[in-house]
Amino acid sequence: MDKGTCAEALRSVREKRPLVHHITNYVTVNDCANATLCIGGSPVMADAPEEVEQMVSLAGALVLNIGTLNVQQIGSMIIAGREANRRGIPIIMDPVGAGATAMRTEAACRLLKELHVSVLKGNGGEIGVLAGTGGIVRGVDSEGMSGDPASIVKELAGSMKIIVAMSGARDLVSDGRRTFAIDNGDSMMGRISGTGCMATSVVGAFSAAHKDPLEAVVGAFVAFGIAGERAALKANGPGTFKPALFDAMAALTPEGVLEHARLSEV
Amino acid sequence: MDKGTCAEALRSVREKRPLVHHITNYVTVNDCANATLCIGGSPVMADAPEEVEQMVSLAGALVLNIGTLNVQQIGSMIIAGREANRRGIPIIMDPVGAGATAMRTEAACRLLKELHVSVLKGNGGEIGVLAGTGGIVRGVDSEGMSGDPASIVKELAGSMKIIVAMSGARDLVSDGRRTFAIDNGDSMMGRISGTGCMATSVVGAFSAAHKDPLEAVVGAFVAFGIAGERAALKANGPGTFKPALFDAMAALTPEGVLEHARLSEV
Amino acid sequence: MDKGTCAEALRSVREKRPLVHHITNYVTVNDCANATLCIGGSPVMADAPEEVEQMVSLAGALVLNIGTLNVQQIGSMIIAGREANRRGIPIIMDPVGAGATAMRTEAACRLLKELHVSVLKGNGGEIGVLAGTGGIVRGVDSEGMSGDPASIVKELAGSMKIIVAMSGARDLVSDGRRTFAIDNGDSMMGRISGTGCMATSVVGAFSAAHKDPLEAVVGAFVAFGIAGERAALKANGPGTFKPALFDAMAALTPEGVLEHARLSEV
Repeated sequence: MDKGTCAEALRSVREKRPLVHHITNYVTVNDCANATLCIGGSPVMADAPEEVEQMVSLAGALVLNIGTLNVQQIGSMIIAGREANRRGIPIIMDPVGAGATAMRTEAACRLLKELHVSVLKGNGGEIGVLAGTGGIVRGVDSEGMSGDPASIVKELAGSMKIIVAMSGARDLVSDGRRTFAIDNGDSMMGRISGTGCMATSVVGAFSAAHKDPLEAVVGAFVAFGIAGERAALKANGPGTFKPALFDAMAALTPEGVLEHARLSEV
Repeated sequence: MDKGTCAEALRSVREKRPLVHHITNYVTVNDCANATLCIGGSPVMADAPEEVEQMVSLAGALVLNIGTLNVQQIGSMIIAGREANRRGIPIIMDPVGAGATAMRTEAACRLLKELHVSVLKGNGGEIGVLAGTGGIVRGVDSEGMSGDPASIVKELAGSMKIIVAMSGARDLVSDGRRTFAIDNGDSMMGRISGTGCMATSVVGAFSAAHKDPLEAVVGAFVAFGIAGERAALKANGPGTFKPALFDAMAALTPEGVLEHARLSEV
Repeated sequence: MDKGTCAEALRSVREKRPLVHHITNYVTVNDCANATLCIGGSPVMADAPEEVEQMVSLAGALVLNIGTLNVQQIGSMIIAGREANRRGIPIIMDPVGAGATAMRTEAACRLLKELHVSVLKGNGGEIGVLAGTGGIVRGVDSEGMSGDPASIVKELAGSMKIIVAMSGARDLVSDGRRTFAIDNGDSMMGRISGTGCMATSVVGAFSAAHKDPLEAVVGAFVAFGIAGERAALKANGPGTFKPALFDAMAALTPEGVLEHARLSEV
């Protein structure tokens, strides 16, 4: 797992243009659609219980994001998730706001229990809450976690036998055996709504296109982080940062990934 | 039907500022609102079954877009659509993703059967599916159709006695007797989410403001396509293309339409 | 209440970074999230009846916006609003489209009756309808009101014992005793979807952070209006205006407020 693998993973996304089925929140859904498109995938959003089984069967990955969940939507996530599991389609779950309300924590736990989730991707607070090691979630923002992040991510991944990805100034990704830190990104990414959700969509596209699950997630964080760095150079503030971020995602090349990736095993 | 008619139709939209009632998806709804505003109309989004009948009665056109449909929303579309038909308010229907799932195909067919739809506007895959001539839909994107597009559009329009509008690199619009091709537009329009939905909203505004239904739809495609061309000159990528597209729609004049329209009868 | 108070109120928002819980429409929800972030607050959107009580208990203010209301959402607004009232958390209500349909007018009246709303913030048409003095609402846009706006705002505030804030070319804010006019802003703000909703979110952030309720609302309108003026200088049209508006909100300082505020008691 090195820079070259990350570049290769982006190349796969661009070549395969994988369909990424999202069941997600109505706040950042447009950003998720454009993030998926700009990185090279094809987004589809569908959450009616009557059609999610059929829709996910066409997809290369399923993104479940509980940012504005409701009871019916959880039901649709279970239906879509079971079909994804039957077909071996990777599920990426973003437990937005887990820890803020019992409903969110319970929904996240239920999805993790009833489905075989491939990648659990959250911020420090959410991962801390789900690891049971302590996390502080304020609305949908992380206010930090207790303990050493790398150890918590690794142990949670090992005990759940999934990939755990924690976004932050330093992103951490582990499959329980190996753990990688990604230092790409820019503080501007925390100043707009939706970058966390967008990162999850990018993970979806990479997971659909690249065979090795751990490499796919690391590659996605690297690519999204580099795009954030470049966009920050063009932006006059958080408002102009978002269009610049989409431009940078679309302009990113495997060569750019190779040159700018900052990842290390920890 | 010539360039002058298209310019005249835009002038009508700007003068009348028609209210366009949307029952639409939650992915691109904000883009639809801004597209309607920028071209010169006034958007309103409302989908509660308790209020759609009253809301549509105030409107100049009703846009039905099934991009993230659910059972309740289909019910609201039927209620609003019946009231629109009673009042002679044109209905523009965008069968987003028809062909991808049975629910979408059936909902599109039900709306076409139970309502008098004025304009059916879709991509090649969706139109091919609804025409029964074969169409490939991948999520919500068209992967093409079988047969000659112009013939299929014309025959479907003739047999259903509605206007059929097919978006693509070359847009095709027919009322079953005459068929027009519009060659305005830019490939950048396919690189962001929402341009298909935005085009449908623009068709709604033109259909509300301009008397002749076929001219209204052709004028809408020409205007939106020219705006896309101009925006592409300003954009650094898909992210900056979207704000530039809204700017270009707002800046478009009847004179600009007259100068840049590329339409032909086929 | 002078320019200095407005500057102070912005300083409080930036220092406290208050959580603003929104139950709002799906059209402009992303704009509301980014407006809240850019002015210095922290947004959270949640509307499931099972979690709104717990979510609002974490928040500094509750924004209720009926832009795309439905029956379940009204129920969630009542649940969240009662908990906000129990805890003394200010409620800001935006009766989007009240007067356009009976459902919207009735929902706005029900919320005003069953909850102790701190701030009622609407456009001229909506306020006129709720004041019973006459207002014309076209979809979700105001087409004007009957009578003298300042008197109507003051009297409605006095009779309901709440703060009434009316947005327009000249914003008016009253608690029934004192009434302030704010002349900041730019006509460009009326050319995109969502500025009314964004203003309400900014009022939410200020109401959460600044002790005096009337000063908070006036300060919010001043800050948002100044940001609009600055953004208009950078924009090429309504499309580029929106990113520029977010940039300007994020860049706004208490010093900038002090220098550019235009408010007067009327």
